[in-house]
Order: sequence, then structure tokens, then C-alpha cells
Amino acid sequence: MTLGEAARRSAADNGFDLQAFAFSAAPEQLRPPRIVRIGLVQHSIVLPTTAPYVQQAQAIRSKVGQIIDAAGAAGVKVLCLQEAWHMPFAFCTREKQWCEFSECAETGPSVAFCRELARKWGMVIISPILERDAAHGDTIWNTAVVISHTGHVIGKHRKNHIPRVGDFNESTYYMEGSTGHPVFETAYGKVAINICYGRHHPMNWQGFGLNGAELVFNPSATVGGLSEPLWGVEARNAAIANSYFVGAINRVGTETFPNEFTSGDGKPAHKSFGHFYGSSYVAAPDGSRTPSLARHMDGLMVADVDLNLCRQAKDKWGFQMTARYDMYASDLQRYCTPDFQPQIVRDPAAQSPS
Amino acid sequence: MTLGEAARRSAADNGFDLQAFAFSAAPEQLRPPRIVRIGLVQHSIVLPTTAPYVQQAQAIRSKVGQIIDAAGAAGVKVLCLQEAWHMPFAFCTREKQWCEFSECAETGPSVAFCRELARKWGMVIISPILERDAAHGDTIWNTAVVISHTGHVIGKHRKNHIPRVGDFNESTYYMEGSTGHPVFETAYGKVAINICYGRHHPMNWQGFGLNGAELVFNPSATVGGLSEPLWGVEARNAAIANSYFVGAINRVGTETFPNEFTSGDGKPAHKSFGHFYGSSYVAAPDGSRTPSLARHMDGLMVADVDLNLCRQAKDKWGFQMTARYDMYASDLQRYCTPDFQPQIVRDPAAQSPS
Repeated sequence: MTLGEAARRSAADNGFDLQAFAFSAAPEQLRPPRIVRIGLVQHSIVLPTTAPYVQQAQAIRSKVGQIIDAAGAAGVKVLCLQEAWHMPFAFCTREKQWCEFSECAETGPSVAFCRELARKWGMVIISPILERDAAHGDTIWNTAVVISHTGHVIGKHRKNHIPRVGDFNESTYYMEGSTGHPVFETAYGKVAINICYGRHHPMNWQGFGLNGAELVFNPSATVGGLSEPLWGVEARNAAIANSYFVGAINRVGTETFPNEFTSGDGKPAHKSFGHFYGSSYVAAPDGSRTPSLARHMDGLMVADVDLNLCRQAKDKWGFQMTARYDMYASDLQRYCTPDFQPQIVRDPAAQSPS
Repeated sequence: MTLGEAARRSAADNGFDLQAFAFSAAPEQLRPPRIVRIGLVQHSIVLPTTAPYVQQAQAIRSKVGQIIDAAGAAGVKVLCLQEAWHMPFAFCTREKQWCEFSECAETGPSVAFCRELARKWGMVIISPILERDAAHGDTIWNTAVVISHTGHVIGKHRKNHIPRVGDFNESTYYMEGSTGHPVFETAYGKVAINICYGRHHPMNWQGFGLNGAELVFNPSATVGGLSEPLWGVEARNAAIANSYFVGAINRVGTETFPNEFTSGDGKPAHKSFGHFYGSSYVAAPDGSRTPSLARHMDGLMVADVDLNLCRQAKDKWGFQMTARYDMYASDLQRYCTPDFQPQIVRDPAAQSPS
């Protein structure tokens, strides 16, 4: 596959890791191939978190703009940025001033910036931001905005599952999303977004699959000490189980905050909560995957995916046909009742092992 | 950890791969550690599939008995055998004479054999067999029988999801299981069994988790050309997502059948459908795992697991608390209605990409 000289030069000049891979599918008689070039962007913040917020945001946009331009020049048609890409990931601090970074999903500076680049390159852009919902009492959400290849906002999705783990004090800032499991039918395929911590929830992945997703992005922000043993497993399993492609994206770098905070782990107060390990990758429904982007560098992953592979995987493996959704619908309903009794078969001799 | 000389000598004399690993958990103040030594057995068949059935079954029992004795001598307290361990995996043939191998779960020769060994070693044994259900019209099931450390049958579970993929024509022989997601409370922890193809279904894994499983075995029979890229992913993801240990077991070797059959892949008729690749392993709720047993050899995997790690993982990650089961219960119910409309947000310009 050809990325073109401009993308390679930009990667060299601007110091980001550029990688490219292609996934193929079998030829079909009744459908042409549906090859889509997708892009994943991972990046660090630029200025110290003590800099004026407007300058911090501008510096990030400026750097990310170079990577998006490289992606556009390389022919990427669907691109996703990392979680809350426009700001430092300050949710470790529990300080509320960071809410200033939140933006209107439809009219904020991030969406204006992405709309222009989407129009420029004829590229669908998914922009995960901290959303300020002025129409509903200035509520904060963790939201992904989907922008069409013509530069208008198709819609948005709000993070379904909110972590309370390690330094990820996100439940301090926003609640569980209210948008269900929307699938966005773009010019280049049916796209959905499973934001960060939602990757630990198999039913969240499944929700997008049941609504017909062919390509699900997982924009994340997660650090080495917490989740790295899980990173190569979850997105890949989701691609297999749901017969779609997954683009898993993690931010990169170490972010230091002005005031010290504790981490609930008995260690002294500190100002940084570890290294965001990048390692973004694409996983396919047949179990294959790309290598990871760098662990310590900004990066652009370009992948050609033939979306026909999704239905081919469904026809081959039959996971959807054999899923017994009706059984699980009633099981879950029963589980949610206050008097639920687990299905346990007790060994009468269990209390007295020999 | 010490396995003892008897197990090592048996492995050397009988030619099976013996491996041992330990998983630890943090010490707690209010619960003692709950360390259980578990065992996974993988094995090939012994006689040609043309030999008289009674001899085939006896030869397998004789070999497996040696491995179970080694496990018992090594101190294993919960042991699981591979799927349909007592017979060749003949479901590629679509021939019905292989149903002769089926047995009564409560009184057949396999259960008698396992009950004796369970009693001998004070060991819980899970015996996955082809079950003949005489009380219900001689129906065939794919069933795991759970035998207590005192040698009595605690109960059984029937495979929930039946494959129709590649040479796995199992829907020709038996139907989807009727036993739900039972968890067996044994003397050594809460144990469940996700049989073979059920490992592709995240809600099947979850069903056992919701009923309180701490240790789920996945007795399988699967070949390299079909599932090997998925093998290291699915059981590990299940352990992470459900905060329990998983013991993934695959049979080993190549089985040749008397009459030729086709595989629906355009290739000429043949008598074997590929190599069962063994590679059994144990995965933990924290994302760690053991290496795999051999790809071409019988094997016994011994692992010490501290079951306290399950609840520790739940408390740390909060997947159960944040799972929003009620949302998924209604989503699934809606999905199962004939007039279900997927949640799709269409880009009006999607039909005319630039």
C-alpha cells in the first residue's frame, strides 16, 4: 500500500511513528470489495499543564493538525483521535477547574477544527472530547463527536461506562452516557465508538455490534501500571466476538499536574500518575491484528480494511446465529431483580474437604 | 511449588508434558488465602478409530488414568479433562454410529472411572463427555459431569452454544444445552464449565460470572487451521472481564476416520480434519496467564490459584459495579423482537462520498 511521500516526510519532520498495514478479505461475487483506509492518532500533550488553558489547547491542536494532514495526504478516509485529545487527562486530580477545557460538542473549538480538516481531506473524523452540555444544566460528559467527510456533525456518543479505578477518578466529573449504542452510517462504512473503560465491558462492545457496526474505535487514555497486561487482549477479543474491526487508541506520554494528589495506594502524594503507553493498534474479526504504534512517541496508524470481512466472519463462524440472545435477555432481567438467586449447585460435602 | 517425584516420573515414563505455575493474591485481613491446586489434562486418542469402540474407550481411559494419577500425586484438587475426552472427535463425519460412544452422565463407564479416581485422590474431577439422555428419548448432549472430591456426582452442565463451522458439524448430533449457567460449589471453590464453542460467546462467560464462578474451565476440541489465532485471546479476555480464573483445555493430535468426508471448503474428500493443537493454559483475572502446554504432546498443567484474587479484581476494577446490566437487559429484549430497528444515525451525505 502506498502512503505517499508527504506523510512520510511529515512523520520524519514532526517526529511521529507512522505505520501502515492492510487486511484483506475474500473476493465475493455479489459485492465489490469495500476497502477503507482508516487512521488512528496517538499523541502527548504539548505545553506544561501550568500554561494558560487556551495556549495548551492551541498547542495540541497545532500538533494534531500536522498528523491529521499527514493522514489526509496518505489517503485516510476514517480517522479517530484519542480520548479527550484536546486537553491533559486531569481526572486524577479531582480538581474541578479542569472542567474549563470542556466544549460544546456541536460548536466548540475542537469540532470547528476537526470540521475544517474533515472537509479539507474528505475524511470522516471522530473527535473524543470533554463535552459541556449547556442545554442540560452545564453538565459534563465524555463524548465522541462524529464528523462527516463533508465536514458536518453526524452525531455524538457519550461514554457508557465510567471508571472508578486507580487514578481514573472520572466519576467525579461525569456520569454514565445517555446515548445508547449508536452506529454512525458514514460514507465509508458503519462506525461506532466504545470510549476507553467501555472496552472492559463485553456487552458494550456487543451493543455496537447488534446495531450493525463494522468498525469500532476505542479511544482511550490509560497508563502502564494499571492496564497494560489487558491492552492487547480486550480490543482483539471484541473484534473476534463481534465480527468487526476495532481501532484501539491510547494516548502517549507522562503528564504532570500543578498540585499534588494521592492515588489511594498508600504511596506519598505526587504530581504525575504514570506513563500513557500509546501502543495503538487495529484488530480484525479473523483474529489478526497490526503491531502496535510506539510506546513513547506520537503516532499515526494507517490500515486498509476490507469491511466485507465482517460479514464473511459472521457467515463462517455463526456467532450471531448461535448467540441465544433471548436466553440472555431473560437471564439478565432476572439478575437485575433484588431477590435474584444465583444458579448454584452445592456439593453437600463441600464444607468438609477430606 | 512442589509437585513431587511421582508426577515427574510419570510424565517422563508416560511421555506427557508436565508444567506448573503459581498465581498469587494480596494477603487480606479478614480472609485467609484460598489457594487451590488445579489441573488441566490434554491428550490424544490411543487406538485407530477403526478399532472396536470398547477397546478405543478402554485405551483412552487407561492413558488418562495415568495422567490423573500423576495429578493426584502432585496434589491437584480440581481437575478438568478435555471435551468428549473418552472418544474420538468424530463430529466431522456426520456419521451417526459414533453416537454409540455416548454414555449416561450418572452411571456410564466414564463417570464410574472418574468417581473412583476422585475418591482415590480427594479431587474434584470435571469429566466432559458425550451424554446419552435415556430419560428423554435417548437424546444426545455434549455434557460436563462434575464429580466431588468424595466421588459422587454433584451435577452436570450441557454445552450452551453448538458450532456449525468448518468440520465441526456438531449441530448434527446435539442441540443447545438446557442447563443454564450452573456454578458448582465444590469443596475447593465455585466452579463452572464453558464447553468449547461457548468460549466465543462473551455472554456465556458472563452467565457463569453472574452466578458467582471463581474458576471456569473451557474443555475444547479445536484444530489449528480454524481457531488457533483466537485461542490465546478469548479465555484470557473472559478471565479479565469476569474476574475469575479460566482453565482453557484443548485436545491434541490428529484423528483419522475410516470413511472419507468433505469439509465444505472446495477441497477433495479426506479422512482427517487437521491437528488438535493442545496449548492448554490458565488465565487469571489480572490479565496474567501461564505459558501453554505442548502443541503436539499429551499434557498436564498444574497451577496454584489463590481464589481471593477474584474478589480483589472486582474491588479494584469495578467491572461488575459499572456494568449497567439493566440497560443491557432491556436492549437485548428489544433486539429479540421481530421489528427491532438498529440504532443507526445516518449521514445524509453518506451515499455520495467525495
